[in-house]
Amino acid sequence: MAKIEVLRLEHRKKRDPRVSTHVCLAARAFGASAIYYSGERDLVLEKTVRDVVKNWGGPFSIKYIPQPRSFIKNYRGKKVNLTMYGLPFAQSTKRIAQSRKPILVIIGGAKVPGWVYGLSDYNLAVTNQPHSEVAALSVFLYEFFAHREKKFKSAKLKIVPQARGKKFSNK
Amino acid sequence: MAKIEVLRLEHRKKRDPRVSTHVCLAARAFGASAIYYSGERDLVLEKTVRDVVKNWGGPFSIKYIPQPRSFIKNYRGKKVNLTMYGLPFAQSTKRIAQSRKPILVIIGGAKVPGWVYGLSDYNLAVTNQPHSEVAALSVFLYEFFAHREKKFKSAKLKIVPQARGKKFSNK
Repeated sequence: MAKIEVLRLEHRKKRDPRVSTHVCLAARAFGASAIYYSGERDLVLEKTVRDVVKNWGGPFSIKYIPQPRSFIKNYRGKKVNLTMYGLPFAQSTKRIAQSRKPILVIIGGAKVPGWVYGLSDYNLAVTNQPHSEVAALSVFLYEFFAHREKKFKSAKLKIVPQARGKKFSNK
Repeated sequence: MAKIEVLRLEHRKKRDPRVSTHVCLAARAFGASAIYYSGERDLVLEKTVRDVVKNWGGPFSIKYIPQPRSFIKNYRGKKVNLTMYGLPFAQSTKRIAQSRKPILVIIGGAKVPGWVYGLSDYNLAVTNQPHSEVAALSVFLYEFFAHREKKFKSAKLKIVPQARGKKFSNK
């Protein structure tokens, strides 16, 4: 199966710290292998994500992209822009998942510039309703991996699922 | 099919405005019929949600709950707490979806108090990894409705899905 990575556009340190953290952690939890982000560089965000990888396992990386346009243009793989204006995602997701090339999932960002639509191979909607890039990304990845959960490596912390309460197994 | 509603615990006006907005909009987009929230009352959040319903359709309502504990206790229906410590959600979701009683999905909130686990009929995990209540809620609702999209009523705005670009149909 192809590797899948995520580009989060136009991060704003002051307005978006928590939403961007959710984006990064959801990308990791639902099976992406890397998050890239543009906008304002945010070392706190990067540290948060690396600490989660250290404790909960990987592989998963975070990298700042100063020039998202040329990054998308030069990306060797399929580019999937998630947007409420796009075509229903479910119809294309299986086909995309069969790709041998890497896949870059692109998500906004306050306002997504028009060129993102033009540079993307797919513009797909996870419902045509206004909601959340965290939600769109998660549901897309969940379908992409056909509901299979990723197995994380080198985790220090692991949860033992419980009907009630909290239980960890330290490794 | 039973109606499904969401309770978002411990909203903090200063720290959570965007994440709580995402929670509310994802709840609506993925088919819940109401969002309740506790913590700090936030009229801006309420207005944002009501404006989305006005433009994009409903039915969907938002209501502040000052006493979440007694609200959960007295809720006449099945209570589902989404938590990273719980049992895998996929196994229970179909059974829950067959319920005739209303369903209340509970999500944190910075720190979820222990009594939430005790008062819930199910404590379910959407992956046992740290990520996002927006993601957990969305994937859970997506599975609950077996991937069927909700049809919204009285919408002023509607998107016509496009392979590229943005198109609305005004009703």
